[in-house]
Amino acid sequence: MNESHIVSSYDRDLEAVQALIMKMGGLVEESILNAAQCLVENDGDLATKVRRGDKAIDGLEERINEEAARMIALRQPMARDLRTVLSVIKISGNLERIGDYSKNIGKRTIALTEMPQIGSTAGSIRRMARSVEQMLKDALDAYIQRDVEMARDVWARDAEVDQMYTALFREFVTHMMEDPRNISACIHLHFIAKNIERMGDHVTSIAEQVIYLVSGEKPDEDRPKGDRSSLETFGQT
Amino acid sequence: MNESHIVSSYDRDLEAVQALIMKMGGLVEESILNAAQCLVENDGDLATKVRRGDKAIDGLEERINEEAARMIALRQPMARDLRTVLSVIKISGNLERIGDYSKNIGKRTIALTEMPQIGSTAGSIRRMARSVEQMLKDALDAYIQRDVEMARDVWARDAEVDQMYTALFREFVTHMMEDPRNISACIHLHFIAKNIERMGDHVTSIAEQVIYLVSGEKPDEDRPKGDRSSLETFGQT
Repeated sequence: MNESHIVSSYDRDLEAVQALIMKMGGLVEESILNAAQCLVENDGDLATKVRRGDKAIDGLEERINEEAARMIALRQPMARDLRTVLSVIKISGNLERIGDYSKNIGKRTIALTEMPQIGSTAGSIRRMARSVEQMLKDALDAYIQRDVEMARDVWARDAEVDQMYTALFREFVTHMMEDPRNISACIHLHFIAKNIERMGDHVTSIAEQVIYLVSGEKPDEDRPKGDRSSLETFGQT
Repeated sequence: MNESHIVSSYDRDLEAVQALIMKMGGLVEESILNAAQCLVENDGDLATKVRRGDKAIDGLEERINEEAARMIALRQPMARDLRTVLSVIKISGNLERIGDYSKNIGKRTIALTEMPQIGSTAGSIRRMARSVEQMLKDALDAYIQRDVEMARDVWARDAEVDQMYTALFREFVTHMMEDPRNISACIHLHFIAKNIERMGDHVTSIAEQVIYLVSGEKPDEDRPKGDRSSLETFGQT
């Protein structure tokens, strides 16, 4: 009886801290979409909002870390339970980094409002951002539901983001060669694309946490579909 | 009297867990250098050694996490002390990821032993790996010494790694266009270069932890020198 009481109160704590992760995830998803939106619409006000919004994300990470530490101190979890609590700390760390990248995109966008548009690259960046946002959503759902299949699917999809990044990189190179006046804008846009690619990396890391948590195994191979993807964008010319 | 006893035993615990971080860091540094070495010398045996060595690195991460959890349970650290213990968990997580990338390089190298050499790219990859290894060494020294200046220096140097990566990317594209029989080898080498670039990202993350730990601030800007680096490798043609 006593033990089942302890277990269920541990579960309640876990649910509460996971709810905070979902709340943080929601803010981060929003920041990704807003960052892409402000880029496409050249919207400096929205960019400022994205930058300022990062404070709330950072605050949630701190709160999640404190809750996780409180759980460790109170419940002294071992083995699998400890891995679960540590996953909370790691996932909130990943989310915090993704939020940072959104903030940086906001900053770059403010600089870009003074520069020429570079073809349809802003639209391509938005598609890339939407893919990452969808992956993040699925990774967090996989986490809450402890769904390894869904996590593996997210993990595999990162290769598509890499491919979009390489295609964009190629477009920037072309625009820079065509007209040196494009160089500054291309450099900013390239960093934005690179930030989104790195967001994808952090989402993959969340997916790996889920796989590890449920199966005790770490995905061992390089990501499967990536193998022939990103350089081929160049190779096919 | 009692309080100073508690403080110093907390310090002893912290020193012990930091010693484990340094040990783990040493293994990871070695794995980076060995991975690059086996690539340059086409050494399948060393590649196998790198792959197998990753188990020890993973084992250390687990031990560090358990020690950190024990410290939290025992000492119930708050605020700054809690941040310190959490940094242990985060840094060991970064080290574990870097070790994974070394392992993947080992695997790719085994596949590459059957393929044509691609110009001097293996040598360039080794230079890139050495830079990352040196950055890691400095980041861990900065961590132990709580040296913000050194950490900021590491953080800035990641841009050089990005630049090396872009220069390599360009070389691969050229080799692939010259001769389609180079494509498979170039794709493997590209992944290796990309893995090293991502190692650099994790080293940067360790440097950020140090800055945050000592100053309470997170480095806010994109990395300073990176701004005009990587695309310019292309732009200058």
